[in-house]
Amino acid sequence: MAAISSITIRHARRDDVGVIVAMLVDDPLGSARERLEDPLPPSYFRAFERVDRDQNIQLVVAEDNDGAVIGCLQLCILPGLSSQGASRGLIEDVRVASHCRSRGIGERLVRWAVAEAREKGCKLVELLTHSTRVDAQRFYERLGFARSHVGMSLRF
Amino acid sequence: MAAISSITIRHARRDDVGVIVAMLVDDPLGSARERLEDPLPPSYFRAFERVDRDQNIQLVVAEDNDGAVIGCLQLCILPGLSSQGASRGLIEDVRVASHCRSRGIGERLVRWAVAEAREKGCKLVELLTHSTRVDAQRFYERLGFARSHVGMSLRF
Repeated sequence: MAAISSITIRHARRDDVGVIVAMLVDDPLGSARERLEDPLPPSYFRAFERVDRDQNIQLVVAEDNDGAVIGCLQLCILPGLSSQGASRGLIEDVRVASHCRSRGIGERLVRWAVAEAREKGCKLVELLTHSTRVDAQRFYERLGFARSHVGMSLRF
Repeated sequence: MAAISSITIRHARRDDVGVIVAMLVDDPLGSARERLEDPLPPSYFRAFERVDRDQNIQLVVAEDNDGAVIGCLQLCILPGLSSQGASRGLIEDVRVASHCRSRGIGERLVRWAVAEAREKGCKLVELLTHSTRVDAQRFYERLGFARSHVGMSLRF
C-alpha cells in the first residue's frame, strides 16, 4: 500500500468518540476491555469531556482525504521536578484503523506528538507499550525511542 | 532498622523543593540529570508551580515524626477513552532519602498513591521504572504490580 501523505491531524471532537472506541476495540487487548455498543456507554463521553477540559492533554485524530478518522493518539504534557524541572510528554492510546495500517499513519501521529512535546518544553517523551506488542516496540525504536524502562501496572 | 509507622504523607509545598531535589540527586540516574546548587536553579520552582496548579497532579512528601521530609512521590490522574473511559493513575518520581531506605516509607507512599487513584475512579495504576532499577521492580511486584509493559523513552 502507498503511504498516505496527506492526512490531517486535528483535535478530537465529541462526535469522533464512536470511531475512536471502534479503533480501541479492533485490537487484541482492547477487544476484551472495551464495549462498542449502540448507544455507546456514557462513560466514554464523560471521559472525553474530562480529556477535553484538561489543558495538559490533547486527544488527536488522523483524518484522511475524505474526512474519515483513521487513527488517534493522546498526548499528556506532565510537569514535574525531575530532570531540572522539565516537563515530560506521555504518549498513550495510539491506534490506526486496521484497514489503514502499514501506511505511515502511526508514524505521522507519533512524530506530531514528539514535535508538540518538544514545542511545549519537554525534554523527554515516554510511553508504555504492552510486552506482547513486539511490532509496536520495533516501530517506536525506528522512531528513536529506547527500550529504557520496565512498564508496570496494577489493575483493580 | 525498624519500620517507621508514623510518617505523615502531605502535599508538597514550595519550601520542600530543595529537599525533594536533594533526594532526586541522591540516586545513580538522578545525579547526572539534576543540579543541586545554592540557590537552586529557578527551573525547579517553575516546575513546582506548574505541578501545584494542575488539579490532576499531586506531588506529596513523607514527613517523619520530627517534620523532616524523607520521601516523595508524584501521582497524575490521567483521563482517557480506553478501558471504557476509566482514568489511569501514573506514579512518578518515587524517592526515599538514602538514610531512611528499607523502612517501609516507599511502600507507604505507593500504597497511598494506589488508594488515592482508586478513590479518584482509576481502574489502573501505571509506572515506568528504569531497566537498571531491579530492586525497584521487585518492590513494585511485591505491592501487586505486574511487569506488563515495555517503557520506551526519547530524550531530546
